[in-house]
Formats: sequence, C-alpha cells, structure tokens
Amino acid sequence: MPHFENQLVRQLPYGLADLFFEQAAAKTELERILQATFRQWGYGRIIPPTFQYYETLATQASPQLKEEMYRFFDREGHILALRPDMTVPTARLVGTKLYDQTLPLRFYYLGNVFRYEEPQAGRRREFTQAGIELIGAATPEADAEVVAVAIAALEAMNIGRFQINLGQVAFLAAILGDARLSQGDLRRLERAIERKNDVELQTMLEELGVAGDAACAIRAIPRLCGDQDVLRDAQRLATNRTARLAVDHLGRVYHLLCTKGLAEHITLDLGEVRGMGYYTGITFHGYVAGLGSYICGGGRYDGLIAHFGADLPAVGFALGVERSMLVTRLDVDFAPDMVMQACEHQTCGALVAMARSRGLSVEVDVLGRRGKELVAYARGRGARQAIFCRDASTYTVADAHASRRMGLPELQEEIASWNR
Amino acid sequence: MPHFENQLVRQLPYGLADLFFEQAAAKTELERILQATFRQWGYGRIIPPTFQYYETLATQASPQLKEEMYRFFDREGHILALRPDMTVPTARLVGTKLYDQTLPLRFYYLGNVFRYEEPQAGRRREFTQAGIELIGAATPEADAEVVAVAIAALEAMNIGRFQINLGQVAFLAAILGDARLSQGDLRRLERAIERKNDVELQTMLEELGVAGDAACAIRAIPRLCGDQDVLRDAQRLATNRTARLAVDHLGRVYHLLCTKGLAEHITLDLGEVRGMGYYTGITFHGYVAGLGSYICGGGRYDGLIAHFGADLPAVGFALGVERSMLVTRLDVDFAPDMVMQACEHQTCGALVAMARSRGLSVEVDVLGRRGKELVAYARGRGARQAIFCRDASTYTVADAHASRRMGLPELQEEIASWNR
Repeated sequence: MPHFENQLVRQLPYGLADLFFEQAAAKTELERILQATFRQWGYGRIIPPTFQYYETLATQASPQLKEEMYRFFDREGHILALRPDMTVPTARLVGTKLYDQTLPLRFYYLGNVFRYEEPQAGRRREFTQAGIELIGAATPEADAEVVAVAIAALEAMNIGRFQINLGQVAFLAAILGDARLSQGDLRRLERAIERKNDVELQTMLEELGVAGDAACAIRAIPRLCGDQDVLRDAQRLATNRTARLAVDHLGRVYHLLCTKGLAEHITLDLGEVRGMGYYTGITFHGYVAGLGSYICGGGRYDGLIAHFGADLPAVGFALGVERSMLVTRLDVDFAPDMVMQACEHQTCGALVAMARSRGLSVEVDVLGRRGKELVAYARGRGARQAIFCRDASTYTVADAHASRRMGLPELQEEIASWNR
Repeated sequence: MPHFENQLVRQLPYGLADLFFEQAAAKTELERILQATFRQWGYGRIIPPTFQYYETLATQASPQLKEEMYRFFDREGHILALRPDMTVPTARLVGTKLYDQTLPLRFYYLGNVFRYEEPQAGRRREFTQAGIELIGAATPEADAEVVAVAIAALEAMNIGRFQINLGQVAFLAAILGDARLSQGDLRRLERAIERKNDVELQTMLEELGVAGDAACAIRAIPRLCGDQDVLRDAQRLATNRTARLAVDHLGRVYHLLCTKGLAEHITLDLGEVRGMGYYTGITFHGYVAGLGSYICGGGRYDGLIAHFGADLPAVGFALGVERSMLVTRLDVDFAPDMVMQACEHQTCGALVAMARSRGLSVEVDVLGRRGKELVAYARGRGARQAIFCRDASTYTVADAHASRRMGLPELQEEIASWNR
C-alpha cells in the first residue's frame, strides 16, 4: 500500500456513510417494500431534484432547519441548497406545475435529504426519507388514510411493535386564538408542553399574558394522552368553537382508524405539538422499541403549497429509512444462488441464462478457479450451489454438504425449482 | 393565486428537473429492471454518500470534470463536492475498507451524480447513473462479463437495436511507449483519433516527435473499426510486444463475447480512446438509434483504486438512466387498478386489503364522491374499475364500458384474477 500524503483523500466527511453488503441489500429491500406499499395505496412517485434555490427550500423552514441546510453558490451567484426534506420540493412542484389537476393528488417520494446536524446517535448528515403527500383533500378521511399508510409501511417493514402518537395542533392554535406568538415563543411553548413541564408552562403563559380558561386548557394539554377519553376531556377544555371543531375532526380521524382495525397502534396525544409553524391540523409520530427517536412523523400542512401557487390543503408523513434499518427484522439474502465455473459451452451459457431469467443470482467465475478452490470460494460467498461443467451435458453440483453428478435435464429441473 | 415578490422561490435552477406521473413511473421501473439485472449477474449494491471531500472526487479526474464539480465548504473549512460519478466513490470505498475481501468483488450502484454542464440537448446537471464495477480480476473473462452485463441491461430495458463499440486503449498506449504526453496533448490526440481527422493527427504526431512505424500505426487507428479483421490488422500494425499483447487480450474478450452469442452487438473500434488518463485496458460505449450521445460507457481502470489503498484491477460501466428513458419502449402503467368509494364496512376494508396484498393499486376516495362522480373520476385517473359498496355484501363494479352488480364472493374472485 503506498504512502498517502493527504489522508483526507481516503476519508469520508463526518456524518456520512458508505453502505455495502448486508446493509446496502437491506436498505434496497426496505426501499422496495416501501415503494410497493405506497403504490398499493394509489400513490405515484415524485422525483424532485437534490438541490434547488435556497429561497425555495427555506419556505416556512424553522430557524434551526435553515441553519442546518448545506448551502452553496451557482455560477450565476444564486444561493443553492441541498434539500433538507422532501415536502417543500413537493409543495413547489404541485403549486407551480400541477395546480390544475383533478384532486386529490397522491404522491410518494424516496430520496436523500441533507442536514448539517451535530453528532448524535443514529443521526447522519445524509439520510433517506420515504413518505407520501395527499394533496387537495382536507377531510378526516384524508388524514386517516395518511396515518393508515404510515402503519401499513411500518407493518410491511416488519419492525415489531410500534405506536403512533396522534395529535391535533389546531386545538392549541385555537385556544391561543388572538395571542400572536413569535416563532421563538411558539417553539418554547411547544417544548414546555412536550416535556410536560408544568412549572415552565405556567411561567411562560403568565409572561405571554395567557390567563383564565385558555391557560387552564393549555396546562392540561400534556395530560391529554390516551384513548377515546382524551377527546371528551379536550372537548370539555375547549375555550371556543374552533377548538371544539378541531377536537371533532380529530375524533372523526380516530373513529376512521378504529373502523380500519388500527386502534391498537394509536395513542391520542394532544401534546403532539411540534412544528406548529408548519402544521395546521393533525400531527403524528411513530415510535418503535429500541429506537431513541421517532421512526416516522407527519401531519397536515394546509398553508405550505400556497407559497408556490394554488392554495391546496395537504397531509403527509415521512419515514427515516436508516432508522428503519436499525429495527427491521427482514431476512435479507445477498449471497448468490449459484457460482458457476467459467465455460464456453453454449449449453452452459444457456443454463446460466435460464437461471438468471428466473431471477436467480448467478456468479460465473472470472479467475479460472477449478474444483475445490471454486467450492471453497462459493462457500465463502454463502452461495447455495457451486456448479462445474464436466462436458457440455454433465455437471457436478456441490452444496455445503456434498457434491452430486447430474445430467443437463436434471440440473435444469433442479434450477427451475429454486425460487427467488 | 397570490402575488409572488420573488419568482426565484417558485423556480428550479437551470439543468434540473422534476419528475412525476409517467416519467417518474418510467424511471422507477427502469431502476427496478437495472437492479434486477445486476443482481442476477451476482452484483451487490454499494451506496456511497452523495458528497465527499473534493480531494477524493478529484482523484484522476480530467481538468474538465474538476471544473464541472459542484463544490462547497463544510463548517471546518474543508472543500466538499457533489459526486460527478460513482466510480471514484466506489474505488475509495474498496481501497480503504474492502481490500482484504475475497476477490473478485462485484458491485452495482444506482444514484444521482452532478455536473455543472453547459446547456446541451438531454444534458442535465443532475442525472442518475446505474452501473457495475468488477474488482480484483484482470482477465479477459472479467472484461467480457462487464460488456455482457451492459448488453443484458440494454436488452432488459427494451430500447430496440443498439451497438457496443469496443476498443483497447492499451494498444495506443503501448505504441506511444516512452513518449511522455501531457494530459492536454493526450486529450488532443484522443480527439483527433475520434474525429478521424488524419491531417490534424499527422500534424500532431510530428509536433510530438512520434515518427516511423509508431506514427503509421497511430494514423491507422481511426480505420481499425469493424469485426474480427480489425484484430489481424491491429496485430500487423503493433510496434512492440506490449501492443501485441493488448490486441491479444482484446481478441480474447471478443471471442468470449462471440461464444456468448453477443457478436451482433459488438463493433471492434480501436478509435475508442476517450479517457486514456483513466482507462488502462478495454473501453466501450453503447449507442442507440435516436440518441445523440452514448447511452452507456465503461472500461478497465487498473490504476484508480491504488490511490486509496490496495492496488486492485477493476473494470466497469455506467449507464445513463435519463438517456435510457428517452429510448426505452417499456409500457409503464401508473394508473390505479381500482378506485373504491369510501366505506366503513369491515368487509369493504378487508376487500381493499386483499386487493393491495395482491399488489394491486387501490385508491379509496377521500372526497365523498358518489355514483357518476366517482366513475368519472376513476376514468379520468385511468383506473380499471370503480367499485361502490351497496351494502356490506353487494357491490357495483363499473369499468369504462358498463357497470355490473356483484356479490362479495364474486367480486373477491374477480379481484383475485387481476394480475399485476
């Protein structure tokens, strides 16, 4: 190995990863499963570019997200940025190009996003998001569908037990009513509610001049977590009609999810108030045992698309593919099915072509390995079989235990029986 | 629609594209086909990060490619760049992490690359490359396999007639022998050969001090294009043993491709000399009628991985997915199979779940459409069937022509007969 003067050449920047072997195969399989699930629910793919004008991507972004974006200049002096999520690119596309389509539009995406994040367990600076956006429907049916798709995706990935915490930011927004909070105050309030810190919450509300029934209702929010009863309690605490309608809407979504047999996965949680500068209705996060953070999250954001064109309601969710890889129990097989000795016989070529056309993974040796050497190589690669051609019509087939001699028709039949 | 003060927010930078509907579905289908093909040939996926240190990506890059890279700074002051290809990231990964694996390694990649290119037909600044790298084998068998995989990929995409021009840069390199050419001179020489410009070539060779048999052989290269005979002519022109071995190797690769029944796709072309600063053996490009540029290209690059660690030979190719989309004749179906009226019956939910579990794409209405309105919507979406629930056990099924009334078991049976 030569001496390397500049070690940077050989290194990856912090927070980035190479995937190969099992990990790449597992990610590819998860991507396949997620795409199949979304398609089965009627969602079509959308592929926005990886970078765009910073101004586009900064639309409705929190100060933190703006700070986390990777920015750079194009040669005309405009500021570009790597996309930090897929929702804003989707909103731009829909607002500028698809505003005259029959509604609703159902889109899914699968792509990399980029955030300059501080070192944390499981947090990369490039990661893959898969998710959906249901655009042009403001109904409880639309909200329930998106939550149901999230559940279907989590089930399809076989991650074991999970829970969806389902909230409604419109409830808190309605109670706050005319109190115009700054983005910073809103974030502090969200965090106090999330941390269920009543002392902090009480102090904040006093500072913000929120008193009486409104203060009482907001201080109760961290406890509004559970099943059906939460709706009744929230209804009782609602200080105005808008707040009551917000609870009614959440109740309708919950009812629809129950009729779909999904109640066991849902916890109503009015303390789910993250991202109120963005979300306008239901919000939810999915949690799995063994994962320090949420695996997916989403909600309704009726104000976003109007920044780019038509004022269309929308609801969606995104799922972290790398996080899913940490908890999935899929059995990913990345070994070849057959390793075959190099051979110029047409029959052998046809045999390999037949195996491949059936979806089998076939390696043909390119290093002139023979006999035991090829068997050892095939075992090392985890291959099901090593196959040697004796002449154009007789083969030796060796698996981990033994080797057998076979005629061509017999071998063809055997290969046809191997399923992928 | 509101008034937009800053139109940049709504625009995409030049050279970038949004894909949706047919185009996104076609790209996704091509990606699926390419991945399946690579896997059947025993290749496993590798997923390198989208950006890396500029110094890594600049390894062996031509001045033009360096100029085309999107560069930016990280917060520690290092220069990063978006990857302009997938081969260098693969070489870094293999050289630094996989040098002790049993050889050969077979990897495929599928990912976006980024180049700041001047406006040209079909040239985007972000595009998707799919390709393979076969690492650790310097044999003709390895070269022939990579060309065969390229052919298999082109056939799987159903692009019609195509041609692979197969060359051998080691032939020209051997004839040039000790004449140490600068990168710039080499590029000029490559271009003169490619353009078959004999006047320019003659002038250049005089300037470079290349005379006698060597000059004669190099001036003959643009005519060394065709089948088997090319090998004999090249052998006759070879000025030294290295040049003869280079032709022998190419002859062996060509023979192997012929035994695989692939001769019809191959044109031997010793004028295939692009990228000699990088390639060290065979090189090839694939051409399709109706495409102004090549659809795929590759070759052997035995010197690259040593920049990062172990000195491993390698051969590979990359295919342009967007270019392939222009010529593929795949029939991509992105319409839903069924549009179903919203319904809370458990039997209806089970029916939809059954259809989805069979891979069908099912939209359940979320906008309260009934009767003719739903049928019109389903037709507009190109759906095969619109389904209404009359009660929990009777359905109306409407296709483009007529509507029928069905019982649940009959409908279940019908859905089971629809294949994806």
